[in-house]
Amino acid sequence: MEAGFSHRHLLDLASLSAEDIDHILRTAQNLKEILSRPIPKVPTLRGKLITHLFFEASTRTRLSFEKAAKALSADVFNFTARMSSVEKGETLLDTVLNLEAMGTHLFVIRHPMAGAPHFIARHTKARVINAGDGFHAHPTQALLDMLTVKEKKGTLSGLKVAIIGDIRHSRVAHSNIVGFRKMGSEVYVSGPATMLPPEAEALGARVCYRVEEALEEADVVMALRVQKERHGRKLFPSLREYAQAFGINAKRLSLAKDDCLLMHPGPINWGVELSPELQHHPQNVILEQVTNGVAVRMALLLLLLGGAS
Amino acid sequence: MEAGFSHRHLLDLASLSAEDIDHILRTAQNLKEILSRPIPKVPTLRGKLITHLFFEASTRTRLSFEKAAKALSADVFNFTARMSSVEKGETLLDTVLNLEAMGTHLFVIRHPMAGAPHFIARHTKARVINAGDGFHAHPTQALLDMLTVKEKKGTLSGLKVAIIGDIRHSRVAHSNIVGFRKMGSEVYVSGPATMLPPEAEALGARVCYRVEEALEEADVVMALRVQKERHGRKLFPSLREYAQAFGINAKRLSLAKDDCLLMHPGPINWGVELSPELQHHPQNVILEQVTNGVAVRMALLLLLLGGAS
Amino acid sequence: MEAGFSHRHLLDLASLSAEDIDHILRTAQNLKEILSRPIPKVPTLRGKLITHLFFEASTRTRLSFEKAAKALSADVFNFTARMSSVEKGETLLDTVLNLEAMGTHLFVIRHPMAGAPHFIARHTKARVINAGDGFHAHPTQALLDMLTVKEKKGTLSGLKVAIIGDIRHSRVAHSNIVGFRKMGSEVYVSGPATMLPPEAEALGARVCYRVEEALEEADVVMALRVQKERHGRKLFPSLREYAQAFGINAKRLSLAKDDCLLMHPGPINWGVELSPELQHHPQNVILEQVTNGVAVRMALLLLLLGGAS
Repeated sequence: MEAGFSHRHLLDLASLSAEDIDHILRTAQNLKEILSRPIPKVPTLRGKLITHLFFEASTRTRLSFEKAAKALSADVFNFTARMSSVEKGETLLDTVLNLEAMGTHLFVIRHPMAGAPHFIARHTKARVINAGDGFHAHPTQALLDMLTVKEKKGTLSGLKVAIIGDIRHSRVAHSNIVGFRKMGSEVYVSGPATMLPPEAEALGARVCYRVEEALEEADVVMALRVQKERHGRKLFPSLREYAQAFGINAKRLSLAKDDCLLMHPGPINWGVELSPELQHHPQNVILEQVTNGVAVRMALLLLLLGGAS
Repeated sequence: MEAGFSHRHLLDLASLSAEDIDHILRTAQNLKEILSRPIPKVPTLRGKLITHLFFEASTRTRLSFEKAAKALSADVFNFTARMSSVEKGETLLDTVLNLEAMGTHLFVIRHPMAGAPHFIARHTKARVINAGDGFHAHPTQALLDMLTVKEKKGTLSGLKVAIIGDIRHSRVAHSNIVGFRKMGSEVYVSGPATMLPPEAEALGARVCYRVEEALEEADVVMALRVQKERHGRKLFPSLREYAQAFGINAKRLSLAKDDCLLMHPGPINWGVELSPELQHHPQNVILEQVTNGVAVRMALLLLLLGGAS
Repeated sequence: MEAGFSHRHLLDLASLSAEDIDHILRTAQNLKEILSRPIPKVPTLRGKLITHLFFEASTRTRLSFEKAAKALSADVFNFTARMSSVEKGETLLDTVLNLEAMGTHLFVIRHPMAGAPHFIARHTKARVINAGDGFHAHPTQALLDMLTVKEKKGTLSGLKVAIIGDIRHSRVAHSNIVGFRKMGSEVYVSGPATMLPPEAEALGARVCYRVEEALEEADVVMALRVQKERHGRKLFPSLREYAQAFGINAKRLSLAKDDCLLMHPGPINWGVELSPELQHHPQNVILEQVTNGVAVRMALLLLLLGGAS
């Protein structure tokens, strides 16, 4: 199953080919069946040690990786550091080299600085998965989003994907733009002007100042989480005005295709980026994204560690 | 072994019949033997995912559940949230639905709000065990107390059970009153007047303003933990005066039957609710309660998950 | 493999004979091979419950023990308490007795008070390993240091070991002095006068006020971590002056034998106790110490629990 995947790390989607992405998604689809078994566990990665290096709080992503590891019978270390203890690159490096010397086979790293996973990958013999680095990339989130769309639409080619929210500061948006474009879809982004990237930085996405332009005839509508704690006061006047101008509600969603998918990376601020009336909407696939997150992470653990010894 | 238990959740003892309680206790007695084996582990729940949702700190109860899960080979997620991050019912619900989508089969929940486990049980396909909700209920503590008494006395019928302390604010007391009465025992409660429930709220327990009345000829004496941090200044003048008026010492214990059991849910404030002279008292069964806590939790995990697939 | 080791606990090296130490090191050398297997895990301690009682923060030592436990298939509880919750010896004792009643077979304890592991060992039926107590002892660190030297030098007898830094307040130094002397080596210590022990307290080590005297012709040079947070202002004028006077750099290291080993217990303050130019020095065995830490801890878990049932 692992044949044909030649990368040692999963750092971002920009360094993968469309074939690589397809390979990961097909592996995830195959592995997903394990999760619905009465005993959702296989011994494939028994004895492998996966270390979670989380320099930002993220229970959700961490537990998704932990479930993936357990489903493949790998062991997990949770190393959650506050930035205060990691003031210099050398110290982060020492932390990594120590954990490698203790037997770590693969690092899952989340870090507030863009490029931290790449730095680590250059210095360790272990494998590295980027679980989010600064504003740069969150490739496993984009892969689970693509898996969800592929399952529902049968293809990732020729679709119109609308991403609404703080595009400029969202690593989820950046990785999805790169991924969906690589697979042959068009990506439209919209949000408050303060949250939109300059055209030249849009990674090939089409920047829409009118949200309707992004939503019209879309196959996928993805709302991003508003980071109240980060931007609330600066980038838009109030949560209420954000909801009025860019929140997705049933009326706005009706601009998209009838069978469009409603997605969100979670956790959701109901009443801000999504209207509560969409909680039980038939096109809401948000919880399926969560399940697919486990499958995608299983696929990556297997592809990166399966052939290693 | 699971035949005859038809509940999907363990939310409180009020919703169980005497037969249900007896069924849980007999299952726990059978499973307890596993704990004294050289390898105290069976593969019964391999691959099942139990998620601990603890919105109040409780290392003791959490580790007891974790040991029970490990003895049955289940996997455990520890999700410990501060209340600040769960401001609305919807968000608690989203947390639960996400963890369910990741593969959780059973939630163990402790929450400062009475009814939180019931709310979750109504919205999840997973099973739910209440590990303490506000002042309402702590059913697994009452079950382990009953298991301890049943092992020592051979029956739960016709006994006099005395519970001393802050009855009004104790979920341990509430669940024990419901449980012991359901099994045919009489429960007498005593404590400072500020800590006693109005007669009408006593759930059928006899309220004694004189502690001696509760203790005389008791088969079981259960002292509750004084919550220094919560009530210290308001509900009684000082810890010393509490100890003088309601602390259990050898002299007070001699009012009870010669073979009465001395119990406490832990952790103990020695010198306050229990006199240090009772630490090695022959009728002190407090550490046996702790071991029985593991057995009772194993029984519940097995009864709720054993037939599920 | 366990025959010949008669101790129930590992509290300090002073209570072990040279034969005991040799037995632990040979066991560790045998077990180390497991760590380089494709599946670095054996079922030897399946079902055993090891509880980490850490009253001081130490991710590094805790994870090393956790890896050792996982390699032998034991289960681990992590109990990290803040001192505030353990105000009296009785309460620490109650914590231990409770965790024992839940099924703990072995406690790994780190505590800021010297003697805490010995106190616990007197009151529990479980086994106890001291993972560092106050300024007193850190025997597993000294054992991994000795294993590293023995692997590289073939012997622990007749060597000159130089330990540089805050000898007076270092449990690492204390355990290494006891251990290396017991195995037939001579130990020389040096550091700022405020960090040196009075001769009478030097445990048989030779106290050198000139760092060169300690380093000359040494077989082993061990730099200790400067505890900036603890001593920075009191015991020496500045980090810069510490580095100038006692930091190990290439020039100072050249005073030692050509094949001397450069060691450090970690984490390292590069530029303070060690010069960055030594990071890739051929005699730097610091990361091998880390790997040997896992092997030594596996040996101790096996020797203390392997014959138990």
